[in-house]
Amino acid sequence: MITLTTDFGLRDPFVGMMKGVILGINPDARIIDLTHGIAPQDIRGAALAIAEAFRFFPRGTTHVVVVDPGVGTHRRAIAASAHGHRFVAPDNGVLSGVINTDPRARTYHLNQKEFFLDGAGGTFDARDVFAPVAAWLDLGKEFDELGVQISDPHTLELPAPIIKESEIEGQIINIDSFGNAITNVRASDLKAIGEGPFRVRIRDTEAGVVVCYANGECNVLHALINSSGLLELFLDRGSAARSLGLEIGEQVTVTM
Amino acid sequence: MITLTTDFGLRDPFVGMMKGVILGINPDARIIDLTHGIAPQDIRGAALAIAEAFRFFPRGTTHVVVVDPGVGTHRRAIAASAHGHRFVAPDNGVLSGVINTDPRARTYHLNQKEFFLDGAGGTFDARDVFAPVAAWLDLGKEFDELGVQISDPHTLELPAPIIKESEIEGQIINIDSFGNAITNVRASDLKAIGEGPFRVRIRDTEAGVVVCYANGECNVLHALINSSGLLELFLDRGSAARSLGLEIGEQVTVTM
Amino acid sequence: MITLTTDFGLRDPFVGMMKGVILGINPDARIIDLTHGIAPQDIRGAALAIAEAFRFFPRGTTHVVVVDPGVGTHRRAIAASAHGHRFVAPDNGVLSGVINTDPRARTYHLNQKEFFLDGAGGTFDARDVFAPVAAWLDLGKEFDELGVQISDPHTLELPAPIIKESEIEGQIINIDSFGNAITNVRASDLKAIGEGPFRVRIRDTEAGVVVCYANGECNVLHALINSSGLLELFLDRGSAARSLGLEIGEQVTVTM
Repeated sequence: MITLTTDFGLRDPFVGMMKGVILGINPDARIIDLTHGIAPQDIRGAALAIAEAFRFFPRGTTHVVVVDPGVGTHRRAIAASAHGHRFVAPDNGVLSGVINTDPRARTYHLNQKEFFLDGAGGTFDARDVFAPVAAWLDLGKEFDELGVQISDPHTLELPAPIIKESEIEGQIINIDSFGNAITNVRASDLKAIGEGPFRVRIRDTEAGVVVCYANGECNVLHALINSSGLLELFLDRGSAARSLGLEIGEQVTVTM
Repeated sequence: MITLTTDFGLRDPFVGMMKGVILGINPDARIIDLTHGIAPQDIRGAALAIAEAFRFFPRGTTHVVVVDPGVGTHRRAIAASAHGHRFVAPDNGVLSGVINTDPRARTYHLNQKEFFLDGAGGTFDARDVFAPVAAWLDLGKEFDELGVQISDPHTLELPAPIIKESEIEGQIINIDSFGNAITNVRASDLKAIGEGPFRVRIRDTEAGVVVCYANGECNVLHALINSSGLLELFLDRGSAARSLGLEIGEQVTVTM
Repeated sequence: MITLTTDFGLRDPFVGMMKGVILGINPDARIIDLTHGIAPQDIRGAALAIAEAFRFFPRGTTHVVVVDPGVGTHRRAIAASAHGHRFVAPDNGVLSGVINTDPRARTYHLNQKEFFLDGAGGTFDARDVFAPVAAWLDLGKEFDELGVQISDPHTLELPAPIIKESEIEGQIINIDSFGNAITNVRASDLKAIGEGPFRVRIRDTEAGVVVCYANGECNVLHALINSSGLLELFLDRGSAARSLGLEIGEQVTVTM
């Protein structure tokens, strides 16, 4: 099974071409679109998305993650084994959330060009490099047939919340298509400062923590622990992001 | 075969996660996206979409329909057998168009939590409840292994046209991505008032009924019976909805 | 294997219905979305997209291409064999780029209505005609069981660049979702006028040709030969189309 995560959108036939290349090598491959809606060149957004989503797939799945502003430069193409899954991506930090969280992760520089698409150019490595390598991995090729192990993959520091005695300083790390603002504060972080009830503050607005969307009073900002175990700000039947003009990176404070 | 209909959009990895959960239980499942473009929390829009679309799939298909403003509250999760198809959804009326049109429909409250995803929270039942149940149904589990039969599913009154002696009062029930305005008036309703030719009136604009889009004069409002057998207002090579500012719920009158 | 290219978008269940019809006839069909994001009724855009994309799929793939402003009129439904692939489309020029480039291409008028969906109307031939015919072709039906060979398919002149001694006059033929402007000038056209370096001019702006996106200076217009072998204007980490207001059809001049 192969999943695809990119910033290509669905307007152009780019994703379709990747699938054609995979199926040309591996006609029985199962291909699942994870998302092609990562904001253009948002490496951090893609890193957060794949770190969250891979675990819902069976072990052994191969995940292709391509947000690649450096395509065509000397940045390496890499593959990784982590958490029992396989990953293929440019070496720009997009796999940070899966490599950094598994001490037994191994990373490889994909330097065996015979597994790339013939006549590959320099501007569409998703189709010419990452898709065919994923097809070969899914067929059973070993990582060390496709490349050489490396110990210095490029990684990003994904923002962690600052936990004080009775307060947590987190930040917004994503805004979903409903306009909910997802923070980097985990349910376990809340436990570290007490039993609650908690108050969440963003700018001058306070929000109480409830357990489901429908428990929020209409048009009043609330927060809940979402399906990823992360604190999320929402407006029941509205868009918290649009109403408050929330942006990724904004600070959120949790107190008891 | 399993189809998916949601209001999740395709920007976030939510739909991909649902597929991962299904394939973890049922690795050979065929999964077809019906649409993820239902307007956020538009239960009525989803009810109309699934009622129209299910019949183009083979009997025995399992359809997952999730527009779910009440996720995490005490609203039930249900499954239904109707028209030889299977459906899985929140109990909020989203299955009205399939349950109400089959007198032999049976509905079940999904209360057997061992078929849900382990550690399911309260905010993403599409992934944690509906996806795994659909995977099990597609594998051959019986409805009464997954829940108990109920006789009181929540249903919506989908708007019906008012048919008088020589006039029909209908309304716009959907606007598609071409800007065509679809009404609740059926071809059979037209037969009830005569042989035609018919005139369709919306506000102060009149439109004659033609048989295909290309028969409409450029930039003049026309109507036709669409591929679902419903009366539809359109502007050839333009957007009727944008040009006239049409909205769902607006009244449309048909006369001979 | 069957690919789908349409202007239907993904908001409505139209594409899902096509898949249901295909799978009803051919339950084991592999269906790949090439794109549903062709601009509404942009026959030329679809012709360029399929001409570029089909080659990344295995020979024998069946490609359904539906941009069809004439649906319901007397325009023919056609199928074609070209480049070892199969194509199904309305006879409006959308297959020009695949028929015109293979001297051994054969084209057929799809007139055997027993292979259409029962009770087919006149407004949704993608579902009622093209999807079922593609399902039958993929199952092994021969073209001449489905229709009769014709010698006069409707074709479009896809715009070719004008190559002078030391200058090429091309034009923008597509703008992708990153805002890159793709021209009809091929790498081989550049070779015809010299060894370079080349300068690309659009309106009053000049751009040098580099080899990858990251080699463009930030916020300065550059050009490269893209993954399809076509000259493309881009702004590294920006949208060339939005910044300069570029449009399809605009002239681009290449000089040494």
